[in-house]
Amino acid sequence: MRSVLALQLPFFFDLKIMKTYLDCIPCFLRQALNAGRTATTDEKVIKTLLSEVGCMIRDIPLNATPPETADMIYRKISEVTGVEDPYHSIKENSIREALTLFPRLEEMISASNDPLSTAIKIAIAGNIIDLGVGHTFNISRDVMEIVNQEPAIFDYTLFKQELAGASSILYLGDNAGESVFDKLLIRELKKPVTYVVRERPTINDVTRSDAIDSGLDEVASIISSGSTAPGIILNRCSNDFLETFRNADMIISKGQGNFEGLSETDRPIFFLLKAKCQVIAKNLAVKNGDIIMKAMNIRLV
Amino acid sequence: MRSVLALQLPFFFDLKIMKTYLDCIPCFLRQALNAGRTATTDEKVIKTLLSEVGCMIRDIPLNATPPETADMIYRKISEVTGVEDPYHSIKENSIREALTLFPRLEEMISASNDPLSTAIKIAIAGNIIDLGVGHTFNISRDVMEIVNQEPAIFDYTLFKQELAGASSILYLGDNAGESVFDKLLIRELKKPVTYVVRERPTINDVTRSDAIDSGLDEVASIISSGSTAPGIILNRCSNDFLETFRNADMIISKGQGNFEGLSETDRPIFFLLKAKCQVIAKNLAVKNGDIIMKAMNIRLV
Repeated sequence: MRSVLALQLPFFFDLKIMKTYLDCIPCFLRQALNAGRTATTDEKVIKTLLSEVGCMIRDIPLNATPPETADMIYRKISEVTGVEDPYHSIKENSIREALTLFPRLEEMISASNDPLSTAIKIAIAGNIIDLGVGHTFNISRDVMEIVNQEPAIFDYTLFKQELAGASSILYLGDNAGESVFDKLLIRELKKPVTYVVRERPTINDVTRSDAIDSGLDEVASIISSGSTAPGIILNRCSNDFLETFRNADMIISKGQGNFEGLSETDRPIFFLLKAKCQVIAKNLAVKNGDIIMKAMNIRLV
Repeated sequence: MRSVLALQLPFFFDLKIMKTYLDCIPCFLRQALNAGRTATTDEKVIKTLLSEVGCMIRDIPLNATPPETADMIYRKISEVTGVEDPYHSIKENSIREALTLFPRLEEMISASNDPLSTAIKIAIAGNIIDLGVGHTFNISRDVMEIVNQEPAIFDYTLFKQELAGASSILYLGDNAGESVFDKLLIRELKKPVTYVVRERPTINDVTRSDAIDSGLDEVASIISSGSTAPGIILNRCSNDFLETFRNADMIISKGQGNFEGLSETDRPIFFLLKAKCQVIAKNLAVKNGDIIMKAMNIRLV
């Protein structure tokens, strides 16, 4: 059940709409370079990839969201390099490393005065495992650091309000490895959860098999968005997903890609993410590197 | 007069040749974005600029040096935005700000136990004033910080040896503003100096009028490289410059662009720069952010 005010105010916005900014364009080239290097060591192939992605710039509409554009670009990466899933083994390693941290984080939650709040912060901390943004990360070190970081936005009262009223929760996954941390939060929600994965591999985003490797099938039903975009773009999702999305009591959305895709929706959502680029940080009025849980289309009742 | 060993070993190399690396390509897009934004606030024009520069990637040969490619790109920026010199007023401000620091740095040199060494470090510190690399800088704060930074490479004994034997010095300028700090070093050289500027405005590189505004005409003769490239590319320079270059006793080269263009030459050169990107830092086997004075084609006698 959703809060009454959220139902009465479906068009209440408090975030700017995310579109492709001019700053995203050099970043797409850098992403193509990183993915190209992951797929092949042949500099000529990577150069061809950059040339082709460079020529795609004229076809990128600035009113598209970044994950729509990223979807085009990552398809091109697969096409030029001939590698369908360049980040496959990196994703496996991320999941493995996250799983080794799992018992320690489990203890941290059970020893906490507020297990739910701690589990939320752990789930946000997992969002560092992102190979799109071009930063390097060290899962063990960074997760522990971020769990102790003060969030810049933490709409926890609203979160507890919505959770109390919800009969089930739709949880939009982001990256493989991060998915392991999502499991810890999902257990603390103590409600039926549907976990959403990408239809096919894109960047290091979580797919069905990654979710299963992360143990998510033990705590949630897993569904696909029906789209390959590295972020939920509603007009590219399957009808099955859209129906689930429309009827969800409460939606938890992980990461930048999902935020970029959903910043225009009228559904009540909590965005859990680490701001990993200036464009996102500016949009959320936080600093680059900040961690946030931001409620959208939800009011305190 | 050049050192005897330098004359005997004209082909002695101890640096890798700088070419355009794949990493330079997304950087060129970022440079186009920054320059575009300096030239115009019209997002459509900047988007067109990025589309055109994106399509130029296929024509960038990886065996070209970065300033050769940058030359093409900055011409495109002027062509698309209609602005010949987008960094004009920024250059004026940089020179003005550097001039306000001048008396303080002059005192620092005269109070130093080793005025020449201090003047070299000040000249390197001025190399932070670089609008190509995409970092922000604060002239007053950063220069003072860098002057006290331990250089990663500082071939000072070789520098003193060459200076003692030289009857005149060719000094390759880099950025406007930095040029003011060059004046301090040139005064300490106590030899006739020829200061080289770019033929026309490119990025924030020093031109003849910038050099005069910096007071360099009081301490050096000013000549143009004959080229618009933001770095000395010998096959694009005028015959007059090439003759001066070939006959120079000692060459001081400022900044990344000149280093990128000259890493293949057999002439004895001192490269004074701050490493401001990973590609340069890796090539020089130093860390990004390090300051260096590196001798090339010179041996201790």
